[in-house]
Parts: sequence; structure tokens; C-alpha cells
Amino acid sequence: MHRLLILSRRAADYERPIAAARLPDLAAMIVTEDPAEALRRAGGCDLALGEPSLLAQVLPQMPALQWVQATWAGVEPLLAQGLRRDYMLTNARGVFGSLMSEYVFGYLLAHERLILARYASQQAGRWDRTTPGSLRGKRIGLLGVGSIGAALARTARGFGMRVHGYTRSSRDCPDVDAYFHGDDRVAFAAELDYLVCVLPHTAATHRLVDGLLLRALPPRAVFVNPGRGDVVDEDALADALQSGRLAGAVLDVFQREPLPPESVFWRLPNVLITGHTAAISFPADIAPVFIDNYRRLLAGEKLKYEVDFERQY
Amino acid sequence: MHRLLILSRRAADYERPIAAARLPDLAAMIVTEDPAEALRRAGGCDLALGEPSLLAQVLPQMPALQWVQATWAGVEPLLAQGLRRDYMLTNARGVFGSLMSEYVFGYLLAHERLILARYASQQAGRWDRTTPGSLRGKRIGLLGVGSIGAALARTARGFGMRVHGYTRSSRDCPDVDAYFHGDDRVAFAAELDYLVCVLPHTAATHRLVDGLLLRALPPRAVFVNPGRGDVVDEDALADALQSGRLAGAVLDVFQREPLPPESVFWRLPNVLITGHTAAISFPADIAPVFIDNYRRLLAGEKLKYEVDFERQY
Repeated sequence: MHRLLILSRRAADYERPIAAARLPDLAAMIVTEDPAEALRRAGGCDLALGEPSLLAQVLPQMPALQWVQATWAGVEPLLAQGLRRDYMLTNARGVFGSLMSEYVFGYLLAHERLILARYASQQAGRWDRTTPGSLRGKRIGLLGVGSIGAALARTARGFGMRVHGYTRSSRDCPDVDAYFHGDDRVAFAAELDYLVCVLPHTAATHRLVDGLLLRALPPRAVFVNPGRGDVVDEDALADALQSGRLAGAVLDVFQREPLPPESVFWRLPNVLITGHTAAISFPADIAPVFIDNYRRLLAGEKLKYEVDFERQY
Repeated sequence: MHRLLILSRRAADYERPIAAARLPDLAAMIVTEDPAEALRRAGGCDLALGEPSLLAQVLPQMPALQWVQATWAGVEPLLAQGLRRDYMLTNARGVFGSLMSEYVFGYLLAHERLILARYASQQAGRWDRTTPGSLRGKRIGLLGVGSIGAALARTARGFGMRVHGYTRSSRDCPDVDAYFHGDDRVAFAAELDYLVCVLPHTAATHRLVDGLLLRALPPRAVFVNPGRGDVVDEDALADALQSGRLAGAVLDVFQREPLPPESVFWRLPNVLITGHTAAISFPADIAPVFIDNYRRLLAGEKLKYEVDFERQY
């Protein structure tokens, strides 16, 4: 028999579908939004489902812990130095590709179709006949081609774009026209119209988007970051945006969130800020991932989306 | 031997690729942006390529006229009462689908992802965590499923939407989930999240988007019109938008263009106006259509995209 801790700001929205699934051998569920309550009540649980930042506070006090299903794609809080690694960690994958596509292509199309500028014209009562741009034939560079990057590549192809992919090693996405690895960052960036970063933050990706990479982009390029703020050298990015070496940026994530009031990004006219909302974890999407993995656990099968603590994703 | 009139505000951009194609049996090209000059010089031409509104002024004075290739999809100016119909008319098709997809999905995604609201938050220095919406699982209704509608349907499916199509008779698009015809307008509109009109303006489509159709939409629906203004009853549309029976509208076309300053649409907060720029005719797209059709003409083959004067498209 298993005992499950659900620790999330949307705990009740996870409890409902999981209870409805009537999972076998699930003896108890501790359901809370509060890490302090979890600390008091969840000591006997061997399974946990929840947000990595909350779970990180509780895991040290769960002696029976066997498996954690994170509700996020990013599990950095659980990879911090000194935290235990004696359990199986799975993250949320396969559900963010379509949300990320909507975010990224919403902003790419807003850029090409001059949506903000046309709205300003409308406010001024001006019939604006400015010729818009088009994604067709343009080049998008994807930093990271996992399940999210593959979804972006597929959507990009649908809009007639050419797709460059920069990855650690993989090269099996049918919608990527050209792959780049390792030191190929400069060749990867040359001639891109859009650079989109969906890399996880690991020791290997820390500040990967640096001055060198940004200088390799043409000045017409727009940088979009719905991934992780720590993958970017923010000083180098601000410098590229201020000097006009980069046309613009759409930033969902930052090294410090919420973005502090003193950040230069609030004041740059060619930056759009979206408050870490590019890909929200909806319980309706994530609960089925947990349910599927729970059934695999009972059956002694390999769980999906297991995180490699060494590789950090 | 043929003689071609090119009459367009971008005449030189058409002349260049056509001259470069070194078409056989093309004895002369009269190239002008000015209908008055065309009237003086083009009397001997048997072929014409250009904008329907300009060509309509010149065609009566072209006794040898055999074939007209319009640079637009909409050819209403050439279908007016009293104008000659003793020549073959082809329009521009097959090139606007991707541009229309970028326009429509740019605005659908801007609506779901709250792009304008987030920009306002940013201007106020506010870290905006409002949960965005998603196209996935939503319903789009297409008024018209020709080549443009089919491109929209394909993109909609790519974003996980359900697609309803309202057509005169066709039902062969693989990306349409359900077809509606004739009096089925109300059933077609029920439960739509988005209604997009890409119908040509004909006697049969005149004011088809009327109070009856608009009242059948749920109040969450957004109407998008990149087609023709005369297909819409603008009073009924303004009424639906003002009364809250319709969430919003994105309007590229109007009964009068440029939209007059006194139009109520300038003042409605839930309307976005885009100045008839949804699908621009780019000579780089249209010249190849002319060149292909010219070669078909020489070979005695059927031309592509012939307009039926009776059907009006």
C-alpha cells in the first residue's frame, strides 16, 4: 500500500482527478498547499506529487520516500546541492509543447504582423496600411530540441520557416533542417531571424546565451526566452538590446523573479515581459501524467520522464 | 504574338520577374501605375495583369482583350453591372493561405495569450501572472473553405482546435471536422469560440454575417474578418459588440475603406482594426501565377483560378 503527499498551490485540483481514478493500493492522500502542514503530516508518505519549490522543503522529512512526480518541467529546486537523491524523480513532460508553441508563435506573429504598432495606430484613429512581415521563409533557431523544442519545430515548419536546432547530442527531430552542437553556437546563430531558448538550466547550459552567441545574431533577430533565466547572461542581453545589435526580446523568465523594479528590462522599449506564464502547469494536464506513472509503478514498469540527477534534466 | 498590359501600383515589381522569365510570343509589355496612361497606350493589348479596381477603368477600351489575370483574390470591381464579360478572368489564389493563417492565428493567439493586456501591465511595471488561455480544444468556425479556408483549417488543427466549416457546397477539406450549408448558419455558430470569415463578396454572401448569425454565437466568441466588409451587416455587428453578446472582433475589411472617422468601430474597446492588410498581394507571389497561366494559355491548356462571372468568384 502507498501513501501520497500532494503539495501544490492547486492541490485540490490534483486531488480530484486522482481520487476519481480510484487507483489501486493507494491507502491515503495528504493534500495541502502548505509545506509546514506537509512537514507535520506527510512523514509516512512514500510518494509525492507537487511543485518542486515546495517539495524541496519537505523531502528531507520523508524517510519512506520512493518516488516524486514534479508538476513542473523544471526541477532545479530538487537538484540543489545537499538535497537527497535516493528516490526516483519524474518531471512533467509532453504536456508543455502545445502551450509553448502558442506562446512563442503568438509573439512571433505579433512581431511580424505589427500587432502592437497597429493597436497604437487604432488608438490614434489612423487607418494603418503598413505592410506586415511574414514568418514564411524566415529562420528560427531552437536552443534545445526535446519534446518542447520538437513541438516548436513542427509549428515553425507549418508556417514555412527553416529550423535550426542546437542540442547537446540529439538529432532525431524530423522538423529540424540543420543541427548544431557544442562549439557550433556562432554558426547556429548566424542568419537567424528568431532565437528561442527552451533549454533546462543545468551546469552545462548556465549562461549559454552570452555575449558571444548574441553577437553572432543578425541585428534583425528577436530573442524569445520561455525557458530558464539562468541560461542567459542578462547583462550581455541588455547590452545587445540597448546597442541595437538585437532587434528585440520576449522574456518570460529571469534570473530573479518576479523581475525586480530596478531591472533595466522594464525600461527597454524593444522588450516584452510576460511574467513566467509561457507554459502553466494545468492539473488537467499533469494529473494524467501522475496517474499513468503510478500504474507503471504498480506494474513494476519503467516510469516516464525520469530525471537524471547527474545530467540535471 | 501577345501584348500585355501591366496595370498596378507595383507595376515595376511585376515587370521585372515577367521580363526575366523571357516568355515566348510576348511581343510587348505596357507597364504603368496610371489608368489614364493605360487608356492611351494599351488599346492593342490582348492580355492584362493588374489590380481589379484599376483594370475596371481600362477594360472597356481594349478591343482585343482575351485574358485578365487579377493580382487580388477579390475581383468585385470587374464583376460590376454593365462591365464586359467577353474575356477570361483569372484571380490570385493559392498564395494567400499562409498569409491569412499568420494574420488570423496571430490575432487568435494574441487574444488567448493576453498580449495587449500583458503589454499594458509591463508599461505599468507590473509582473503579470494572469493565467492565459489556449487554442487547444477550442472551436473555430470558418465561413468559406476554399484554398484560404483550407489553410486556416490546417493551422487550426495544428493548434489542436476543432474546425467547423460553412460552405456553399464543398466538403472535401480533410481538416474540417463538421460541415454546414445553407440554412445551417445557427447550428454552425453555436458553441464557436472564433468565427472567421473568408468568403468572397457575392450576391449569395451579401450581409451573410447578420444579426441572426451573430446572436447564435456564444458571448465568449470573437469574430475575425479578413475577407470582405460587404459580407457583414455592420450595424448588427456593432450592436452585438456594444451589448456584450460578442466578446470581440478583429476587423481588416469594412463596407467603406479607409474606415471613416465617424465609424463606431474606432470607438469600441473590444475591436481591433488592421487596415486591409491581412493578405497583401506581393508581386513575388503573384508574378509566378501569371507566368504559369501564360504558359498554359500558349499550350492551349485550361488556366488556373478562372473566375465564374455568374457565380462571382
